[in-house]
Amino acid sequence: MHMTKIQSQHTEQTSRHHDIIRITPLGGLGEIGKNMYVYEVNDDAVIIDAGFKFPEYDMQGIDYVIPNMEYLDHIKDKIRGILITHSHMDHIGALGYTLEHVRAPIYASKFALGIIDDVIPGRMKPYETRAVQAGDHIKIGNMDVEFIHVTHSVPDAMAIAIRTSEGIILHTGDYKIDQTPVDDKPIDLQKFSALGREGILLLLSDSTNAQESGFAGSERDLRSTFDSIVHESKGRIIFSTFSSNIHRIQQIMDAVAPQGRKIFVDGRSIISSVKVARKVKIMEMPENIFVQQDEIGSVPKDKMLIVTTGTQGEPMSGLSRLARGEHDFLKIMKGDTVVLSADPIPGNEEMVARTVDNLFRRGANVFYRREDKVHVSGHGGQEDLKLMLSLTRPKFFVPIHGEYRHLVWNKRLAESVGIPASHIFILENGQCFTVDSEHLTALKRIPAEGLLIDGLALGLPDSPILTDRARLAKDGILVSVVSIDRMTGKILAGPEIVTKGVVADDDAILTDLTREMKAFMVTHRLKDVRSTPDLQLDLRKFSAKYIYDKTRRRPIVIPVILER
Amino acid sequence: MHMTKIQSQHTEQTSRHHDIIRITPLGGLGEIGKNMYVYEVNDDAVIIDAGFKFPEYDMQGIDYVIPNMEYLDHIKDKIRGILITHSHMDHIGALGYTLEHVRAPIYASKFALGIIDDVIPGRMKPYETRAVQAGDHIKIGNMDVEFIHVTHSVPDAMAIAIRTSEGIILHTGDYKIDQTPVDDKPIDLQKFSALGREGILLLLSDSTNAQESGFAGSERDLRSTFDSIVHESKGRIIFSTFSSNIHRIQQIMDAVAPQGRKIFVDGRSIISSVKVARKVKIMEMPENIFVQQDEIGSVPKDKMLIVTTGTQGEPMSGLSRLARGEHDFLKIMKGDTVVLSADPIPGNEEMVARTVDNLFRRGANVFYRREDKVHVSGHGGQEDLKLMLSLTRPKFFVPIHGEYRHLVWNKRLAESVGIPASHIFILENGQCFTVDSEHLTALKRIPAEGLLIDGLALGLPDSPILTDRARLAKDGILVSVVSIDRMTGKILAGPEIVTKGVVADDDAILTDLTREMKAFMVTHRLKDVRSTPDLQLDLRKFSAKYIYDKTRRRPIVIPVILER
Repeated sequence: MHMTKIQSQHTEQTSRHHDIIRITPLGGLGEIGKNMYVYEVNDDAVIIDAGFKFPEYDMQGIDYVIPNMEYLDHIKDKIRGILITHSHMDHIGALGYTLEHVRAPIYASKFALGIIDDVIPGRMKPYETRAVQAGDHIKIGNMDVEFIHVTHSVPDAMAIAIRTSEGIILHTGDYKIDQTPVDDKPIDLQKFSALGREGILLLLSDSTNAQESGFAGSERDLRSTFDSIVHESKGRIIFSTFSSNIHRIQQIMDAVAPQGRKIFVDGRSIISSVKVARKVKIMEMPENIFVQQDEIGSVPKDKMLIVTTGTQGEPMSGLSRLARGEHDFLKIMKGDTVVLSADPIPGNEEMVARTVDNLFRRGANVFYRREDKVHVSGHGGQEDLKLMLSLTRPKFFVPIHGEYRHLVWNKRLAESVGIPASHIFILENGQCFTVDSEHLTALKRIPAEGLLIDGLALGLPDSPILTDRARLAKDGILVSVVSIDRMTGKILAGPEIVTKGVVADDDAILTDLTREMKAFMVTHRLKDVRSTPDLQLDLRKFSAKYIYDKTRRRPIVIPVILER
Repeated sequence: MHMTKIQSQHTEQTSRHHDIIRITPLGGLGEIGKNMYVYEVNDDAVIIDAGFKFPEYDMQGIDYVIPNMEYLDHIKDKIRGILITHSHMDHIGALGYTLEHVRAPIYASKFALGIIDDVIPGRMKPYETRAVQAGDHIKIGNMDVEFIHVTHSVPDAMAIAIRTSEGIILHTGDYKIDQTPVDDKPIDLQKFSALGREGILLLLSDSTNAQESGFAGSERDLRSTFDSIVHESKGRIIFSTFSSNIHRIQQIMDAVAPQGRKIFVDGRSIISSVKVARKVKIMEMPENIFVQQDEIGSVPKDKMLIVTTGTQGEPMSGLSRLARGEHDFLKIMKGDTVVLSADPIPGNEEMVARTVDNLFRRGANVFYRREDKVHVSGHGGQEDLKLMLSLTRPKFFVPIHGEYRHLVWNKRLAESVGIPASHIFILENGQCFTVDSEHLTALKRIPAEGLLIDGLALGLPDSPILTDRARLAKDGILVSVVSIDRMTGKILAGPEIVTKGVVADDDAILTDLTREMKAFMVTHRLKDVRSTPDLQLDLRKFSAKYIYDKTRRRPIVIPVILER
């Protein structure tokens, strides 16, 4: 976009209408996961994506983390739709919570809508949906929105373009540049190029793999690996991948087809996504190649493919239970071939390694290493990302979908293809901003710390509950209980001691401590009858020191004094 | 080794002396870490290495894990020495505990002895040491032991060969094949080759990186990367690596020397190992290039190199504290260059990533990726390992130092260079065996599950304390306390409720539960006066259900009833 052209436009039609644009990232900037972005143009707004993320390593006992959606309450009358780029949980997992704030229709591909319906809790149903597909160019409220086909590790992923008086805003969602995808629907490079020629004001582009050199590679590249693994396998093949990676599942099914293998699909999430994929006709397999649980026994080993979950070593997944020998009705046998078609997500490496070790121990041959070439990423590497930047030639660039270092690397890539550093903005969650044809301006940052979901409760990451849990995990807890006479301080009952995570329940230390504590209280009362809080403090110190001296552990110590 | 030759030997001298050899792996097989092996030849024995490992992801609150050394007590009168291959903690970290079982002299290089002295607790001092160096060929008891120079990520690492009537047993320790090491002392390939010609009965070789293709690469390869990073740096350079990697530290010091940078060494472990290295003259730097804490301020930014710990993102390390802005006297400034010269150990990825992100946030330029080439492994890749196998041509092969999958890969490598599968044994900890010129025979497995060190206590991994801690971490604990009259069941005081990790201390749920519990007890007493254990059970059920209904959390619930 040329400055001169803009200036002349400006001169010619000084009174032209200017859209007021405000963009609010609620999640997905400076982190991987819980993606959620609000785009406001004048009096209309759309949300793009509403994902959750899994807890970080120091979020003990948390189920998942969702974006803080307070901001939605302020603008809910403006929100015309919730637009979904694709059906991964880090883009749709918080939709149930979103609908509690905003009852707007959900725009998504047919496949994504099928998956979404599993995510929305019953109490939020029915909810409004609009099936859209790549190529659709529609008004949502007064907003001009276009859906563009991209390739990713899930079918029917889409980028979203919003046209404004100031130029086009392009939000890529997750993507890589796959020119030979399994469904023969390559990423729509023509469209990105055309938008680039038309004039992109602002690009927001996936940064997940911005530190990986090269291209991500095509999903189709895996087929030859699968063919050779299948060719070598004399026993059962157990294939594990992300449940939503329909094309990956299609490829292994295609690879075993010449051998006439039957297919058993194991695990709730994978059964569900295969079902949706078959329903919307993006996976086509004859019904009779699938077998049910009770038919497995009658299929010869070299005619069996089992597709299951558990690439991340999740303890309750099908693959982990197989590895531990704890699966309900399947057992690893010598001669089985196991394929883990995924990279470990950071934080899961140890669980994955333990699963692989146990599979080897049980006699399986396991394919899992990077060198085994059983996985390609769905996120563009540096060359994919540069190509997107070069085709779209945006005036301003905001890297999204990535931890801080990934945003830094995407900024570096943008600079390397000629976008001036002053036009690239590394922002973090809650950093809303406006953009017009000349400026991108940061506004006051709004609260956007993730909400931790733990059962029914929503909390912030610095909750004292988490600090307590970390402490409990490390050192355990000791509660001592005694009932005393309010007037005399005399012990009426107890002390009794309850511990968890400190020493065994029958440890002699506890008997000793009970006795010592009693003696301490008697002396204490004789010496110094003071208030109950004082006694409590003294008891705490006394028992903490006693336990530390004997064990070198520092449990949380809570004395409870019941007064009569 | 040729079968025919052995058979003819056997025929010629049927009455020759046969050594009785027994080998007991106490740690380091099927895991990375806590290496410890016992070699017995007739009435003499040596221990090779005595390491600890850091706890696995589900060992909550554990400090570290050491080998189970019970077996040493049975043979302690035979043990003539503790032989140390090199000074990494997974090879020396359990020496203090070992000396509690066996007061044998420690044989190690001068450098290793310096590091070891930091590891042995005061109460075990003094202890006997024998400085040895590569090339030494000595009798230890009646055992014929030779130390052979290998290259690794620490100076003066050694393999150990034990000569017996049955052939040579070669224990490699950790190694890679570095032909151009920083200290100009390449791995002694000549010696390995000579031993191979002489006849190696059994090879035990490092498997840590057996699944990595190619050669590990030379430590010296890093120098050109360091030179170019240093050349580009206009501000301070903060260099982080493992404290024992003296050659790595030497190389960055050499790289900054032309710029005349001063060096500040930060962190207890790195200060100590640099001190030992300088003392034993394997690191040579003039005293005047080191600065002290109070001099840092007076050194210009482009004249400063800070060497620190923290490559694993350990929360209390120098680098993590710098990244969080919590270092006592150093602060990251825009323009600083930070080098993380190490790969994350599996399990540490998230902590490392968080550290890198925070360093970028504070304006540093960070080198940390594999592509940045700021690290090479000290463990041989597949090509190193094959070369060792081909030079030594062992009759029998036992892969060591690795998790189960690494042992499998090392077996595959051995097969690929012509060792028959039937001569390769994947063993795990506690699987002792004998070997003679014809057979390797597994004996009865002995207990060798690691001991978890937690304060003063030694425990096994299946301890209920750990299960409790995991549960506490996930769900927290609720203790309710009430004092009742033994005869009437009437409440004398309470109930009081104490929780940690469930809800906030001032949560209304607790007030409500206290009231409900009181009401429940009154009704309960009226309806059904039963024994205290019954009441306890009912109270537990009642409060667990109450909390679950309100919060969907399942804390450990412990009702304490004090009777009078």
